Amino acid sequence: MGMRRVGVLSGGGDCPGINAVIRAITKKAILDYDLEVIGIHNGFEGLVEGKWRTLQYTDVSGILALGGTILGASNKANPFHYPVSEEEEVVFYDYSQKAIDYYHQMKLDALICIGGDGTFHIANGLLQKGLNVVGVPKTIDNDLSGTDLTFGFDTAVHVVTEAIDRIHTTAQSHHRVMVVEVMGRYAGWIALHGGLAGGGDVILIPEIPFDINTVCEYIKNRIRSGKTFSIVVVAEGTKPKGGELVIKRTVKESHDQVRLGGVSYLVGEGIAERIHLETRMVILGHLQRGGSPTAFDRVLATRFGTAAIALVIEGRFGYFPALQGNHIVPLPIEEGIAELKTIPLNSPLLGVARSTGTCLGE
Amino acid sequence: MGMRRVGVLSGGGDCPGINAVIRAITKKAILDYDLEVIGIHNGFEGLVEGKWRTLQYTDVSGILALGGTILGASNKANPFHYPVSEEEEVVFYDYSQKAIDYYHQMKLDALICIGGDGTFHIANGLLQKGLNVVGVPKTIDNDLSGTDLTFGFDTAVHVVTEAIDRIHTTAQSHHRVMVVEVMGRYAGWIALHGGLAGGGDVILIPEIPFDINTVCEYIKNRIRSGKTFSIVVVAEGTKPKGGELVIKRTVKESHDQVRLGGVSYLVGEGIAERIHLETRMVILGHLQRGGSPTAFDRVLATRFGTAAIALVIEGRFGYFPALQGNHIVPLPIEEGIAELKTIPLNSPLLGVARSTGTCLGE
Amino acid sequence: MGMRRVGVLSGGGDCPGINAVIRAITKKAILDYDLEVIGIHNGFEGLVEGKWRTLQYTDVSGILALGGTILGASNKANPFHYPVSEEEEVVFYDYSQKAIDYYHQMKLDALICIGGDGTFHIANGLLQKGLNVVGVPKTIDNDLSGTDLTFGFDTAVHVVTEAIDRIHTTAQSHHRVMVVEVMGRYAGWIALHGGLAGGGDVILIPEIPFDINTVCEYIKNRIRSGKTFSIVVVAEGTKPKGGELVIKRTVKESHDQVRLGGVSYLVGEGIAERIHLETRMVILGHLQRGGSPTAFDRVLATRFGTAAIALVIEGRFGYFPALQGNHIVPLPIEEGIAELKTIPLNSPLLGVARSTGTCLGE
Amino acid sequence: MGMRRVGVLSGGGDCPGINAVIRAITKKAILDYDLEVIGIHNGFEGLVEGKWRTLQYTDVSGILALGGTILGASNKANPFHYPVSEEEEVVFYDYSQKAIDYYHQMKLDALICIGGDGTFHIANGLLQKGLNVVGVPKTIDNDLSGTDLTFGFDTAVHVVTEAIDRIHTTAQSHHRVMVVEVMGRYAGWIALHGGLAGGGDVILIPEIPFDINTVCEYIKNRIRSGKTFSIVVVAEGTKPKGGELVIKRTVKESHDQVRLGGVSYLVGEGIAERIHLETRMVILGHLQRGGSPTAFDRVLATRFGTAAIALVIEGRFGYFPALQGNHIVPLPIEEGIAELKTIPLNSPLLGVARSTGTCLGE
Repeated sequence: MGMRRVGVLSGGGDCPGINAVIRAITKKAILDYDLEVIGIHNGFEGLVEGKWRTLQYTDVSGILALGGTILGASNKANPFHYPVSEEEEVVFYDYSQKAIDYYHQMKLDALICIGGDGTFHIANGLLQKGLNVVGVPKTIDNDLSGTDLTFGFDTAVHVVTEAIDRIHTTAQSHHRVMVVEVMGRYAGWIALHGGLAGGGDVILIPEIPFDINTVCEYIKNRIRSGKTFSIVVVAEGTKPKGGELVIKRTVKESHDQVRLGGVSYLVGEGIAERIHLETRMVILGHLQRGGSPTAFDRVLATRFGTAAIALVIEGRFGYFPALQGNHIVPLPIEEGIAELKTIPLNSPLLGVARSTGTCLGE
Repeated sequence: MGMRRVGVLSGGGDCPGINAVIRAITKKAILDYDLEVIGIHNGFEGLVEGKWRTLQYTDVSGILALGGTILGASNKANPFHYPVSEEEEVVFYDYSQKAIDYYHQMKLDALICIGGDGTFHIANGLLQKGLNVVGVPKTIDNDLSGTDLTFGFDTAVHVVTEAIDRIHTTAQSHHRVMVVEVMGRYAGWIALHGGLAGGGDVILIPEIPFDINTVCEYIKNRIRSGKTFSIVVVAEGTKPKGGELVIKRTVKESHDQVRLGGVSYLVGEGIAERIHLETRMVILGHLQRGGSPTAFDRVLATRFGTAAIALVIEGRFGYFPALQGNHIVPLPIEEGIAELKTIPLNSPLLGVARSTGTCLGE
Repeated sequence: MGMRRVGVLSGGGDCPGINAVIRAITKKAILDYDLEVIGIHNGFEGLVEGKWRTLQYTDVSGILALGGTILGASNKANPFHYPVSEEEEVVFYDYSQKAIDYYHQMKLDALICIGGDGTFHIANGLLQKGLNVVGVPKTIDNDLSGTDLTFGFDTAVHVVTEAIDRIHTTAQSHHRVMVVEVMGRYAGWIALHGGLAGGGDVILIPEIPFDINTVCEYIKNRIRSGKTFSIVVVAEGTKPKGGELVIKRTVKESHDQVRLGGVSYLVGEGIAERIHLETRMVILGHLQRGGSPTAFDRVLATRFGTAAIALVIEGRFGYFPALQGNHIVPLPIEEGIAELKTIPLNSPLLGVARSTGTCLGE
Repeated sequence: MGMRRVGVLSGGGDCPGINAVIRAITKKAILDYDLEVIGIHNGFEGLVEGKWRTLQYTDVSGILALGGTILGASNKANPFHYPVSEEEEVVFYDYSQKAIDYYHQMKLDALICIGGDGTFHIANGLLQKGLNVVGVPKTIDNDLSGTDLTFGFDTAVHVVTEAIDRIHTTAQSHHRVMVVEVMGRYAGWIALHGGLAGGGDVILIPEIPFDINTVCEYIKNRIRSGKTFSIVVVAEGTKPKGGELVIKRTVKESHDQVRLGGVSYLVGEGIAERIHLETRMVILGHLQRGGSPTAFDRVLATRFGTAAIALVIEGRFGYFPALQGNHIVPLPIEEGIAELKTIPLNSPLLGVARSTGTCLGE
């Protein structure tokens, strides 16, 4: 087969394990098939602007445990909608042809795009235009369809759990409600897994709009049973039931506060004005996206990387390796982005949460 | 249904996540079914000697993150072969009837046995004698049949990976071969996962007897390519090809050394006398069995615990909850102990290891 | 010497190591002097309301590694200014006589108060009223005078450093300015140590009001030298030079944002509008105050605890054990609260920061 | 002043923080004094064999958190006693003149030697021969005279403490004596600090030969008080009182076992044959020497590095920066190696250990 050169880029936000994918791709490509591997810089930006370098076997030594990506990344570089600064303004152009031109100029036989929803949409677009694209699923939030898990998720859950462990002792000693805001705009996977692992008393997720009174009743019951503290884990995209939560504020301007502070402030202040316990908020933010991946994520990322090369060799373009049970299976990229994978309301894991006494704000 | 009282005990060695299982069992039993939960002390010892206490909801507060087991454990207490000290000697008796008597005296309607191979054999024996037994699979080594994973395994792999990360910098700076011996008497799961996650250059497992010359050729090749160090991960039960490895020793007595030091000394000395690099051994031992479980193991243990109560309620005695893909499914205890789950020689994970340049000593 | 019973309480906010102090106090008191140890609940609240229990030797087993305090704590309970809820309002009373009465009712011969600035002020007040008070210095911020270090500080710095390590990979891969807000209202110790340990490019502390233009020039210089990212560590109490920083906002209400988001938003937005790099903020907040103490803090807390008992036995009331160099020396409580220990502008550590290329915003 | 070029090398074993020293040296040398920094490869080997490279400012970016040394190291390369392989044999030569020649050929104005006892002896020898040598103290064991602490020590104690934390839960649940062997051939600093921080019940150090019967009596007392487990921390260089410990062995050859297994086997088996508890040994070994340094060690290493450049600039050759209390002070290298810094028998820290109930085997 004429496979000679394979390109690789990583799009979108940071996610522990990208380097492990790049390493596995490069090693297998060189070892098993003697391919040349081209690392494209800063995601699709490097494809549009022609910035790349050859990845040698030694270039990927020692990067398995590193967070980030040695190729650099850019959240914004969509070839079909490419931002260009023009006189104090940013204007967007369709630069997909530039990307295609560089693809050919680099003499690529295939292009592996590591990314999530956004990256997969672009990859799909380039596929339509004739490029030999293979995807590798990457999302902290674990909301990509078709794959049970993506690398980075276990690390994010690990960070959340360590944070809750730390916060737990303060909450307990100081009789407080601690509200921990975690990632998850549309899906509550991190909140649910991290909340279960950290022993969160209340877990609020986007899939289940919460009733602040339910939450407060639950916390009051805990107080009655002698537990003068509670840990509330809330995914950033969670909304109150009915879409709004009225808080009697004594401060003048509430709107910006809520916007800035995020849902944790909404929840925390909602509790504080109904219950006589001190309430504190912690927003974990970017701590969940960076740093060294867990052992689990390093192995999964390595499996995905080698599987991507297998797809390239088999000529299964338009596909990505997905984890289903213990198996890596090829799935069409379109399937990955068909819909967001949220927590099903009949998920057994929600049952596990309820059965171990967790309040879901229902 | 007449279910009133359920007993729980943990048998065998330590394993991070037992407390999470006990907590989930107790919480679900009380919350969902208003059962009384009896915690039996020190595994089957407490069943034979009638030592137990009621577990209240509050007794399991705050134990999710703790290693060990709040019930205590004993490796040796087999009711069918019970050790009794008699005049400087240990004599073994079949005390299973004592266990059965105490089961009835405690008014148990069911007994949940958390344990691995050994515990499951005993549980099966008690089942044959008419007790309503449900199992929960527990093994660091991940070698129990029927379930993809058991809690404790991810934690062990995490500990191994952290250790390799630490050792890696020394190996690299000081141009050394570092041999890391990990758990796994019959199965190489910890070595394979930990080795992949830590970037071990050589991974030796019981399923693949190793040829020391293959290992040394591989390390020499690394030296030729400029990598003057190597990390060798070896499972404790690994054997050399042909069953023996002859080492020209200058010290007098070699037999005890090897027995004591374990396979890592065999491998390390085998390399040292063939290659001109300093070699050091690290035996991780009990570090892999104890301490706070990872987030992954806490969630899995919690799922197992709640599933065990579901089995009790459904009256599916003789079963244990197993993880298959993402699902918890009931399996007969007999199936769990039918055979040891070792790494299949056609496992894709071995292919992943080879494709990323790992030497398996073949 | 008539010493029979010694009380212990922990006041103020959470701080890893309090339990290690309580354990050391209890063990030494019982082992060396056969004293009875009374644990007072929730700081001075328990003294005013008479809530306490005897601490046995076994009560302090296994608490060395635990964050929080087994005695509970309260930030607000000042006997001289005690909050009482009366008809929807909180009214403050001088309840110091209640505290004194309970001190005598508990038959205490001495009272050890673990705490920071606030606790030491109260302890001093009770000393004036004749109670035999000994202090143990506790402050995350390390701003208590007379002692080089307090327990909890090393743990806070550890948490900050781990967070920066995680954030570092994202900043580098994604070409971002990451602003990390850490504790320190009046003193920049955590920011300086954590910033140095984490390799922060910019460290902003309350002792040195910053000029946003200096910071931006520095970041631009980094970009010119090829470093398209920067880590900014800022103590929460840091102020811009001249007391204010004008930001051209496009959002309507800026005041609350800054108040809520803290100084990190001020800094982050100040950079974002002057430099063409994405900017993100992370506020570590309560992560710095909780959880298991570092080895260093466990040892220091244990030394303080045994030293406090020595002071009690020697009858040196009104004193606290301070760390000076490697030695624990007794200092008057008054000296500890005489003034806040901020970073001297001629501190060699600031020189170390400058010499390794750190921008201090000067 | 004529200072233009300064060389740096790291000798001896691995120690977390060497890279932080190299980074601080390089940054300060370039930033403050516009020096050229020469990194010498593999310790004195590079000096004898003329292997080196210029360290640019960017070469030390991102190495602060890395274990090991980017310059490489060698335990064996002593210029005064240099190992040369000649026909199956290793012969030693005085190659100090080669080192001196290369020093001049590299046009060095000064040479900074990062190392411990061995390195300092060599550095002193080169100083006598007229080279402008400055030292930086490095020892995991903390046994270098004159400096309160060296970098790497806090990391080693951290690793020991984490290990004990893990082992603790197993010991407690499974009613075991766990013997943890830590580094320290002549000095018990790691054992004492790690043992105190981890709550070791027994701490055995080289400074205090132990009586196995004392240890066993202590453990029996614990059992009587209900504590059916014990953690024994023993420094590798610890000896039994009277120099020997007779163990009635059932296995044939005891000598090699003890030699191989280390003192932990001696202690563990000594306990096992006297007490009816299962006993397990863990040898932490190289885990204590590698990996990312703690925050404390990163700051200390950075201070040492900048201080070394200050000594170079001041022309204080033959000196090294030492930590005394909070201050970095210059000390003659000769003073650092005058005698080994062991734990004084009147050390207050030993008193702290005894007062918190620790058995020292006395």
